[in-house]
Amino acid sequence: MRRTIGIQEVDDIALGAAVLGTGGGGDPYIGKLMAQEAIHEHGPVELLTVDEMGDDEWSVAIAMMGAPTVMVEKMPGGEECVQAYKAVQSFLGKPVNYIYSIEAGGINSTIPITLAARLRLPLLDLDGMGRAFPEIQMVTHNLYGITATPFTMADEKGNSAVLSTIDNRWMETFARGIAVNMGATAHIACYAATGAQQREAAVHGTMSLAEKIGRTIREARAAHTDPIAAIQQVTGAFVVFHGKLVDVQRRTVAGFARGEAILDGIGVNSGSRMKIQFQNENLMAEKDGEIVISVPDLITMVEEDTGEPITTEQLRYGFRVKVLGIPSHPHWRTEAGIKVVGPRYFGYEADFVPVEQRFG
Amino acid sequence: MRRTIGIQEVDDIALGAAVLGTGGGGDPYIGKLMAQEAIHEHGPVELLTVDEMGDDEWSVAIAMMGAPTVMVEKMPGGEECVQAYKAVQSFLGKPVNYIYSIEAGGINSTIPITLAARLRLPLLDLDGMGRAFPEIQMVTHNLYGITATPFTMADEKGNSAVLSTIDNRWMETFARGIAVNMGATAHIACYAATGAQQREAAVHGTMSLAEKIGRTIREARAAHTDPIAAIQQVTGAFVVFHGKLVDVQRRTVAGFARGEAILDGIGVNSGSRMKIQFQNENLMAEKDGEIVISVPDLITMVEEDTGEPITTEQLRYGFRVKVLGIPSHPHWRTEAGIKVVGPRYFGYEADFVPVEQRFG
Repeated sequence: MRRTIGIQEVDDIALGAAVLGTGGGGDPYIGKLMAQEAIHEHGPVELLTVDEMGDDEWSVAIAMMGAPTVMVEKMPGGEECVQAYKAVQSFLGKPVNYIYSIEAGGINSTIPITLAARLRLPLLDLDGMGRAFPEIQMVTHNLYGITATPFTMADEKGNSAVLSTIDNRWMETFARGIAVNMGATAHIACYAATGAQQREAAVHGTMSLAEKIGRTIREARAAHTDPIAAIQQVTGAFVVFHGKLVDVQRRTVAGFARGEAILDGIGVNSGSRMKIQFQNENLMAEKDGEIVISVPDLITMVEEDTGEPITTEQLRYGFRVKVLGIPSHPHWRTEAGIKVVGPRYFGYEADFVPVEQRFG
Repeated sequence: MRRTIGIQEVDDIALGAAVLGTGGGGDPYIGKLMAQEAIHEHGPVELLTVDEMGDDEWSVAIAMMGAPTVMVEKMPGGEECVQAYKAVQSFLGKPVNYIYSIEAGGINSTIPITLAARLRLPLLDLDGMGRAFPEIQMVTHNLYGITATPFTMADEKGNSAVLSTIDNRWMETFARGIAVNMGATAHIACYAATGAQQREAAVHGTMSLAEKIGRTIREARAAHTDPIAAIQQVTGAFVVFHGKLVDVQRRTVAGFARGEAILDGIGVNSGSRMKIQFQNENLMAEKDGEIVISVPDLITMVEEDTGEPITTEQLRYGFRVKVLGIPSHPHWRTEAGIKVVGPRYFGYEADFVPVEQRFG
């Protein structure tokens, strides 16, 4: 079934992707406006499932890379992602006729829509994470041996780079350095993949899932029912904590927004304390000193009444939030997946325990 | 007059270029062996003057970038510079049939010979500095508006990058970061230039000057005459100090070898002390607290008896040296040149004074 993304769908996708974005992926607001402006000018974007793509046809992921704290201060112009896209096509020497999103999250779910609208190319209903993660190699495609090369970068000043590396971990190193020098954020195009590769390696249905989450929240708000219960229904999320934000530490280092948030329990969690650590995205939550949920499972803070997801750069003292835990895609729960994005990769001395085992 | 570079000429060029290299450009020894091996295998390299190149034909500079302290520990394989060369040609979309040296100095005078031999392409008798400088934008071509873009980089692991920037100072920033991530050194190809551009912007005759310096030193040694007097005759060098090395501070930071050397005076300079500061290359010399010679003029330490030039990474306590000051190319002594490579660019609160005004 062919579907299109119009103005309303962008609203819903931006909202739903922010739930999947686990605090990262940048401010959804700016990205949403850009996508809606592009659709207004060029018409709705066609959303295709992976089955509608030929085995040997090519797609490419379009995103912004860097610290979301800086992204919100740099309004992207739009030309940079066109340049990054064209550079991949030129380097690959093949037509690239499908656009996809590398991760679910504010700006990185809507930038591919913007580009697809401008180039009048279809968008694929999938992504490379089913959530957001901070590093370049943290893409399910990487687990299936798909290279991020050619990896192209462009900034708003007119600088650009094309990188080719022996593995995707090296790509993270090189690209991060350039992103820092480009002013902490860069527009990127990468992980060119064929239809056959997308069928095997991608997280399927992410765009329509994001849209469904957003629509469900919107409808719950309109009907004055509980938006958080609505999110739970669509995503299988668990409410792992209810608390008030009493402290936030945040610093932009080496191209990332790193920090932690401290929540004092409310209601059923009165007397407890939760600490959430993040690197662009929320990585790990400790309740009273014990890790209760960690990567690769999703940790998202939503405002207690509206269900509005809160990005790490929006965290402010006094926010009253519910912390949601959402099971990650099965690709991430494999041995290979845990090695790339599990708690130990991020420096936590703990094994991954699926959220449903603790809260189910 | 067409000339060729064979085994003997490489010996002489490596030695002479180290005099012009002002302490930088890497260890001449490894680069020399590589060039001689390539000539042994593929035959001598043709050395052409800029007048033998067509107005619209293209040339490219080949070099190693990074800290010479690390270069000497990483034996270059040779394939990396072929890859960097091919990437420039492919990005430019035009045949590039001439190779040139970006700077005079140990490894960066011989790596272009190695590549020219392997590709059986002619080498141009010119360079972009007439000496060595530490940063990418410090090339006479930059003074004439020639872009370093496309700038290609490759490492020994198989990683590569193609950079395109709005100016050559940005190129320094991006490329330096990548070079650091490539393990402190990288093979590069850049500053593609036409024959017409080379006629205007290059420092002409550098390769044959280096050869002549090296040959003159060699012949002086064989004849048991003074090799330093021989260097002076060919280059117009002034002996600005005679001393013994009593202290060397050296650290590899941000992709550069930075530091300083302290010399206690000998003979005519007894009772005086000289401090030489370097960033890969020697930048500035203070005699008894007063700057007596600085960039862009050349500061080269040579062993007092043999005239052997000493690179910054070879500096050792106890060396007895003469410090030579050589007038820089007129391109560098212009207002534009001083802005790019003068003492103030490197953080010294001093105006440039030509070496011949103080010592002539």
